[in-house]
Amino acid sequence: MKFLRNTWYCAGWSQDLLDKPLAITLLNEPVVIYRGEDGTAIALEDRCPHRFAPLSKGKVQGNNIACGYHGLVFDAKGNGTYNPHGNGAIPKGCSVKYYPVIEAQGVIWIWMGEASQADPASIIDIGECDKREGWTSVHGYLNVKCHYELVADNLLDLSHVPYLHSFLSSDEEPPAGFKEERKVEVEGNTVWSMHWNYNCPVSPLFSLLWDEAPAIGTLRAHMCWQPPSVLYLDTGFSAENGTIEDGACFPGIHLITPENEHTSHYFYAVARNKKLDDAGLNEGIRIQINNAFEFEDEPMVEACHERMPETDLIALKPVYLPGDVAGMRARRKLQELIQAETSA
Amino acid sequence: MKFLRNTWYCAGWSQDLLDKPLAITLLNEPVVIYRGEDGTAIALEDRCPHRFAPLSKGKVQGNNIACGYHGLVFDAKGNGTYNPHGNGAIPKGCSVKYYPVIEAQGVIWIWMGEASQADPASIIDIGECDKREGWTSVHGYLNVKCHYELVADNLLDLSHVPYLHSFLSSDEEPPAGFKEERKVEVEGNTVWSMHWNYNCPVSPLFSLLWDEAPAIGTLRAHMCWQPPSVLYLDTGFSAENGTIEDGACFPGIHLITPENEHTSHYFYAVARNKKLDDAGLNEGIRIQINNAFEFEDEPMVEACHERMPETDLIALKPVYLPGDVAGMRARRKLQELIQAETSA
Amino acid sequence: MKFLRNTWYCAGWSQDLLDKPLAITLLNEPVVIYRGEDGTAIALEDRCPHRFAPLSKGKVQGNNIACGYHGLVFDAKGNGTYNPHGNGAIPKGCSVKYYPVIEAQGVIWIWMGEASQADPASIIDIGECDKREGWTSVHGYLNVKCHYELVADNLLDLSHVPYLHSFLSSDEEPPAGFKEERKVEVEGNTVWSMHWNYNCPVSPLFSLLWDEAPAIGTLRAHMCWQPPSVLYLDTGFSAENGTIEDGACFPGIHLITPENEHTSHYFYAVARNKKLDDAGLNEGIRIQINNAFEFEDEPMVEACHERMPETDLIALKPVYLPGDVAGMRARRKLQELIQAETSA
Repeated sequence: MKFLRNTWYCAGWSQDLLDKPLAITLLNEPVVIYRGEDGTAIALEDRCPHRFAPLSKGKVQGNNIACGYHGLVFDAKGNGTYNPHGNGAIPKGCSVKYYPVIEAQGVIWIWMGEASQADPASIIDIGECDKREGWTSVHGYLNVKCHYELVADNLLDLSHVPYLHSFLSSDEEPPAGFKEERKVEVEGNTVWSMHWNYNCPVSPLFSLLWDEAPAIGTLRAHMCWQPPSVLYLDTGFSAENGTIEDGACFPGIHLITPENEHTSHYFYAVARNKKLDDAGLNEGIRIQINNAFEFEDEPMVEACHERMPETDLIALKPVYLPGDVAGMRARRKLQELIQAETSA
Repeated sequence: MKFLRNTWYCAGWSQDLLDKPLAITLLNEPVVIYRGEDGTAIALEDRCPHRFAPLSKGKVQGNNIACGYHGLVFDAKGNGTYNPHGNGAIPKGCSVKYYPVIEAQGVIWIWMGEASQADPASIIDIGECDKREGWTSVHGYLNVKCHYELVADNLLDLSHVPYLHSFLSSDEEPPAGFKEERKVEVEGNTVWSMHWNYNCPVSPLFSLLWDEAPAIGTLRAHMCWQPPSVLYLDTGFSAENGTIEDGACFPGIHLITPENEHTSHYFYAVARNKKLDDAGLNEGIRIQINNAFEFEDEPMVEACHERMPETDLIALKPVYLPGDVAGMRARRKLQELIQAETSA
Repeated sequence: MKFLRNTWYCAGWSQDLLDKPLAITLLNEPVVIYRGEDGTAIALEDRCPHRFAPLSKGKVQGNNIACGYHGLVFDAKGNGTYNPHGNGAIPKGCSVKYYPVIEAQGVIWIWMGEASQADPASIIDIGECDKREGWTSVHGYLNVKCHYELVADNLLDLSHVPYLHSFLSSDEEPPAGFKEERKVEVEGNTVWSMHWNYNCPVSPLFSLLWDEAPAIGTLRAHMCWQPPSVLYLDTGFSAENGTIEDGACFPGIHLITPENEHTSHYFYAVARNKKLDDAGLNEGIRIQINNAFEFEDEPMVEACHERMPETDLIALKPVYLPGDVAGMRARRKLQELIQAETSA
């Protein structure tokens, strides 16, 4: 199974790239990411052409990086620029692959395909989380032992929430007038999976945002997928007679990058519009969101992955449920893009 | 290497299947076993046809089981009976494989082949352990990292006991008059491997059953194999001038089920006919029997397995010793049955 | 990739072979080494021909070894000599492979090829370490998760020292008059990689050998490689106006034996010519040398190995630096010998 290459992937949160080179495997390629002297994030193949040492074990020098084994120095485009040995001549072929990187919206975006086609304008706007001034957000990362599309499927089909996540749903019997509505919309490369629950009891998670939360209200959870695997969740709970703006919301960003065919990098961020200054709540929410994925979703998607003899779900002829529509549209869209890229 | 499929395998001790679904791999297939509301043990393919989630992560509902990921419900025959989503229609193909199960003699017997051929009358009578009323027995389980036939071979050739198990044999020089007798008998699908030691010093294990054990006596250890890998051990020690009935005995059951080609489930039970009410002795015997296998047999058979480039022992042209006769007869019998099943 | 077989490999330090049989994998073959009653070191295939049990789990009896599973006994040439079962006849084919072994210079040398060609005279003289009477030496062992030629390369190209080993080099800016000299010499099957640093600050390691070390002097580090992977390091530091004999030296032996294609046994010993009676220094030096390899070289060569899609470095077309000359000469020499052996 091929990966889409000419696209921007999340390689990390900006806030996590400090003064040490970072080793990360993306699309099965070893990559070193480091912050140059001028603050720019730089990404190179993490394998010196001399002895195949990881450059991530080396030292940043200005905007260059020096191999930690024999001291060869490479610039931000991956060209060998200094050889401390012999007459100092740079040997033929002394370069490593260079990956375009853009930092935007708190994300280190990396382009794994043809560098010449890397267009900063094609970076997806995920700004909802920090766009609205004054909102508070928490960031997290998990390494998930499954194919990245299973993580996206899990997010696009929130019908699993009542079965897997007690903290995110209510235990109570749905009251009279409870009604669910689901809608999938596809527009270009974007897939929206929209859920509304009317006359719905408030969940433990949402009740954290009020001193006295409305017991019953409207829950919305609208997941938006864009290729390769960038998801934005607009989720909120508002009183029956209140506006969305008066309600509580937890907009979230979910960025999934294949480490290889069997493991994935999962970066997430969740903001909120209430109790912004409650620092204790930051940690409380981070732990709750993290735990929901780490202890509920993650073991489940990993177990599914283990039971799949191949990573192409469709080839395994699964039984379809209504909740699969969005995930299947996203999978087909991604497949089209990969095929177009491959045949180009 | 193929497994015999149309036969009953032990999937566990009845006493260990309580109110939680149990995940177990048998013959390389993921199986969930659970006890329905009415107490019946039920076994299904442990993989939901929707997203391949393990049903063992789900919830028992009556005699049905609900998938823990999206709530699809399957009945005791593996048919999908409830879909909580959309219009509730059961999707085409929404079923999992069903395995016939019979509980008898304290064992959960499972039929891994054609369900229509599962005949309860063909379950092997292993009742010796609990048949004699009032006898006390201990049960155990070990996961062994080797092919299941190596475990059976180890049991069928007890000539290894003096080399591997000091607790099960005597350290003393055999006294005058010591005599060994060995006999292998094959009758239909049954292989008996019989050992007698006359004028034999009592072993530490047997001496546990007497306040004052006879120092010298007759030891018998008769191992009976039936396919696929069901063994009954009739072992006892009696005084030179005493009867078998007056002697001490430890009848044992050894049920070995392939987990896959390289690992095995090993279920064992050992009863005794003396000191029945000594509860401390239960635990003492359980630990001794367990330790003999876990710390003496198991490392040995696992090390042998590691050094075998393939699992078919005969293809590796081993050197034969007299003690191998029973194991080889059992291996050939099993091979005949597998071939008959495959060509049918 | 083939190994050179008709040659002597180090299977261990003599001082480490005590009264227990030792299991070791060499060139991907399981070997048991034990010391017979008369003190001789004996090496056999570590796999009984009966059930493939490791003989290393057995018992030494005189100069023989008895299998710990069923008691078959093998002599020092691997011939079955005793069968405790049945009529005691030794079954046909009851033997294991025998490996010639010579103990010399503190090393257990083993011949992995045709036993008839094993010539004790062809053992390489590594005596420098203990030849000079009264010198003190420390011995060590590391299991390295990489191809053995990467360990040899690392030793033959000491230009990595300033980048990887702060304790073995000086942090100070090289003083005026500092000069490096490098030379590679090949003579028959021997490759010398010679390094001199003139007007060089003393390293922390060498300064351990003096109460007041000369701040500036001449450092020499001459590495000598012989096939298959036997290295001798003549390294010393002497005052600018002093003789080599007055200087400090740490002659070292590095013996690398393939465990398989991906892991290596690395045996090393380091002697010294000063502060011979300082027992605390023994341990200090052992720890420093060990740490330099275990925490600096080893993670680096293992990381390089991981990033190599195959173990043949040359096939991967690496970029060459001046420091590679000796390692490449050694690799080509070894390749010639393997090819000659294969075509013979």
